[in-house]
Amino acid sequence: MELNHAILLLACPDTLGVVARISHFIFERRGNIVNLDQHVDPEEKMFFMRVEWSLENFSIPLSDLEEAFAPLAKEFKADWKIELLGVKKPKIAIFVSKYSHCLLDLLWRIETKEINCEVPLIISNHPDLAHIASQHNIAFEVLPINKENKPEQEKKQIALLQEYKIDLAVLARYMQILSESFVEEFKYKIINIHHSFLPAFIGSNPYKQAKDRGVKIIGATSHYATADLDEGPIIHQDITRISHRDSLNDLVCKGRDLERIVLSKAVRMHLENRILIYGHKTIIFEA
Amino acid sequence: MELNHAILLLACPDTLGVVARISHFIFERRGNIVNLDQHVDPEEKMFFMRVEWSLENFSIPLSDLEEAFAPLAKEFKADWKIELLGVKKPKIAIFVSKYSHCLLDLLWRIETKEINCEVPLIISNHPDLAHIASQHNIAFEVLPINKENKPEQEKKQIALLQEYKIDLAVLARYMQILSESFVEEFKYKIINIHHSFLPAFIGSNPYKQAKDRGVKIIGATSHYATADLDEGPIIHQDITRISHRDSLNDLVCKGRDLERIVLSKAVRMHLENRILIYGHKTIIFEA
Amino acid sequence: MELNHAILLLACPDTLGVVARISHFIFERRGNIVNLDQHVDPEEKMFFMRVEWSLENFSIPLSDLEEAFAPLAKEFKADWKIELLGVKKPKIAIFVSKYSHCLLDLLWRIETKEINCEVPLIISNHPDLAHIASQHNIAFEVLPINKENKPEQEKKQIALLQEYKIDLAVLARYMQILSESFVEEFKYKIINIHHSFLPAFIGSNPYKQAKDRGVKIIGATSHYATADLDEGPIIHQDITRISHRDSLNDLVCKGRDLERIVLSKAVRMHLENRILIYGHKTIIFEA
Amino acid sequence: MELNHAILLLACPDTLGVVARISHFIFERRGNIVNLDQHVDPEEKMFFMRVEWSLENFSIPLSDLEEAFAPLAKEFKADWKIELLGVKKPKIAIFVSKYSHCLLDLLWRIETKEINCEVPLIISNHPDLAHIASQHNIAFEVLPINKENKPEQEKKQIALLQEYKIDLAVLARYMQILSESFVEEFKYKIINIHHSFLPAFIGSNPYKQAKDRGVKIIGATSHYATADLDEGPIIHQDITRISHRDSLNDLVCKGRDLERIVLSKAVRMHLENRILIYGHKTIIFEA
Repeated sequence: MELNHAILLLACPDTLGVVARISHFIFERRGNIVNLDQHVDPEEKMFFMRVEWSLENFSIPLSDLEEAFAPLAKEFKADWKIELLGVKKPKIAIFVSKYSHCLLDLLWRIETKEINCEVPLIISNHPDLAHIASQHNIAFEVLPINKENKPEQEKKQIALLQEYKIDLAVLARYMQILSESFVEEFKYKIINIHHSFLPAFIGSNPYKQAKDRGVKIIGATSHYATADLDEGPIIHQDITRISHRDSLNDLVCKGRDLERIVLSKAVRMHLENRILIYGHKTIIFEA
Repeated sequence: MELNHAILLLACPDTLGVVARISHFIFERRGNIVNLDQHVDPEEKMFFMRVEWSLENFSIPLSDLEEAFAPLAKEFKADWKIELLGVKKPKIAIFVSKYSHCLLDLLWRIETKEINCEVPLIISNHPDLAHIASQHNIAFEVLPINKENKPEQEKKQIALLQEYKIDLAVLARYMQILSESFVEEFKYKIINIHHSFLPAFIGSNPYKQAKDRGVKIIGATSHYATADLDEGPIIHQDITRISHRDSLNDLVCKGRDLERIVLSKAVRMHLENRILIYGHKTIIFEA
Repeated sequence: MELNHAILLLACPDTLGVVARISHFIFERRGNIVNLDQHVDPEEKMFFMRVEWSLENFSIPLSDLEEAFAPLAKEFKADWKIELLGVKKPKIAIFVSKYSHCLLDLLWRIETKEINCEVPLIISNHPDLAHIASQHNIAFEVLPINKENKPEQEKKQIALLQEYKIDLAVLARYMQILSESFVEEFKYKIINIHHSFLPAFIGSNPYKQAKDRGVKIIGATSHYATADLDEGPIIHQDITRISHRDSLNDLVCKGRDLERIVLSKAVRMHLENRILIYGHKTIIFEA
Repeated sequence: MELNHAILLLACPDTLGVVARISHFIFERRGNIVNLDQHVDPEEKMFFMRVEWSLENFSIPLSDLEEAFAPLAKEFKADWKIELLGVKKPKIAIFVSKYSHCLLDLLWRIETKEINCEVPLIISNHPDLAHIASQHNIAFEVLPINKENKPEQEKKQIALLQEYKIDLAVLARYMQILSESFVEEFKYKIINIHHSFLPAFIGSNPYKQAKDRGVKIIGATSHYATADLDEGPIIHQDITRISHRDSLNDLVCKGRDLERIVLSKAVRMHLENRILIYGHKTIIFEA
């Protein structure tokens, strides 16, 4: 695990000297760059960069870092953010309904430190998975949803996210659609798993749709939740082969193995600040 | 290569004794079953089977085989066909426009005997690939297509397919849409390659569509051509990973490697009589 | 889940009429074949088959089935066994050391009924995973192993397997090597997971070996345990890509996702009687 | 295609300021960095980098570039080289025996500009593929090899490589082993394809070895040729699934699809200066 690292994510129009000037900024303050990954999109004429540096001998206080960097960013007309790794653990809330596989997989990866975060809160519209929360000493809030109570229940959900100071909400096969206002309030702070290879089989019952169409491969897609359902920036996708021998239940079983891996990877990429969103697409700076 | 084998493809309502009765039919006539693959769809309550047997000591003339089998098939209310392998080579025609990769790949596999057939005819709407036809001693017919001449040119294409006694037409990145009547005339005898993971990105420029959507995986799909474009029974699909670093041209390059493998496999499966079509889906009896 | 099915696994020299005669045997007794998969190895001139049939209207008692079939099997000089599905649940014992991922994955698949068996017993040489056994109400027996006590501890292990009437032992990253006599006593009833793509990186620390060699892909292999370590019949393998960026710990993390999937699949194939062993190789009749 | 780009490949002990100082060096001379990819190996405490910059407005002559950079490299105790893209096309020689698939694939990718190089020379120990060379207007030199004439024939091969000013030799299923002195003379300038997933199945007949062992996956590996056969730095690997149904010939067919893709990718990576060799391993800076 990287301890006491700073990470800069930056997007700006492509210009001469961005790498040189920014790496010099860090070097001047005695930051040791451990990872620099950049990409120029020649069609968009945009420059994208992720820089990670050690704060071990960093010569300015962290509280002054953003202010110190702002003038340079302004000069490059950049969208940017700086995140600190290792200073404090990010907190995630996991939303579930009745399926346990994504939840269990996330918890296991967090406990083995493959994903570095805390899970103080699980929110569900059903009580079924309470025992898992209890085994892991996590608060479990049941908020059943129907057409009438949805606005009111979402208010409670938002209040819980604020109370627990949640940095990221993970929809781990949560079978409810969040309202536009909820999604806007936590823009790019909600990750969903859709059990198809988007944009194929948008909407409900994608495995049923896949079986009906007779495809030979099924998939899963993790993406940021946006107001347009299943249209958010895609983070990760994976697939597996199927054949005519597979029943709908076989598809569900095979799909579960994809869903948990695809969702967990997205959560990790997000928490390691490896995702830069540009337009409605993501740039993933892989480890 | 299997020489002098017969292959029965059969679909019927699931009943007691189909395997026993049919394998007995073959055994009685001294056919040695080298491959039997069957599948029961429990939801549709349908039975599907492919049986391949050696004709080495077969006790009845091939010309009598279909008549001999017909009563049994009728009893089971079966859709069925019997094909012979090794008796005569099937003939395929390849339709192309300007891209050579699928054509070259098919020709190479045919020459190495990975695919067992003859290619007497290549049809194109452009003259660009004439040199390849010439290097391989294949007739190359250029039939340019525009809105006005399409019906008339298709008539010529159909006449060519008949003249050359073509068993299967392969659309190897042929950039034209065949008319409904053409497709009907050669029902399930035309295989197309679509350069996306169907049903995602139906229609034109699927790589452009994929880039615009920001997917992390692209694919290719081979399918039987039907009147509904890109809706025919899917035979084979494959995918490859892409990232934000890939330009549109990179997608095209990566996609070409998929297209040629996915199309060639479909052609081979068809020619080995491994594909049974039921409804708008395929059952593929893999080797 | 199939209830009340019989499964015949059979290997014999390739002869005329095996399918016909055996399917007739089943048909005569009113068994409805739901799955028949066979394979002829033309080099070995051997015939291999798996037949699964419904016992719903089967006309002879199960207790007479083996005796009834024996003469036919003898005629074909066959190695064979008949197993019943759904009559009683098979019992497995899971051997572990300190790693939880394979154990957790197996338990989760068993609880979701993806794998159909009972787990009455977990055996470990360390106490670390006792809490998992306890959460799932499974007996947890700690038998620490060292050079001196190994024969004696193995006797206790064998006694436990007998006491619990265990049908299959699964070594879920159990870090000890079983003695030759142990393995012989449970021949082809012990499945192991090796964390490499066998036969590459046999022995200890395969991830370290992989990193040192600079391979671009790592793998995992499930196989039957035999006296020759890592030389048993291979059941299933899978791989994942790595790069120079991956530390040894990254390899371990990526490998865990392979190990659990590759081991669970092997266990499922075994319990569904889909594995026929011939020589030191397996024939897997895939679902 | 990138035109007129310079590429620096550099390895040095990890120190503060390498990125900053080097990117500043380029920036000062008005080079626009289009790609910078670096990696720190925390165990080896080594820093590795690939920087690619446009020479459009570069302020110093290319002939002075290496001299100008040398002092900085010396300060960092770096191994380094600078290559130019687009200034002149690299020249490759392809060594073949009787198999055409890797040769055809390379030629096709070069003609479609997926790989940017010239092929003035094909060397073979058999005359079989002469027609392909002739169709593509490439010199084809037949140098049959046996125990006695090997040293003398290798001298001729080396002379040919020098005469044609060859930058890279590609062993495209060339069935001969090059002598140690040959390999040393063209150190890291010879790429080989081995038809197995190294280090599994080193040596001859790897598909036979794979079939005998009963593996469920086969692979192919491209690597730099070194004196130790099949032990050179690995560049790229890929795999495909097989089953008990696959005959040895099926393995050969499936393997061919791997071999050509794995070899072509290695050649492209090399020619784009994306490969840094450290110890006996490669660091691949992916596009």
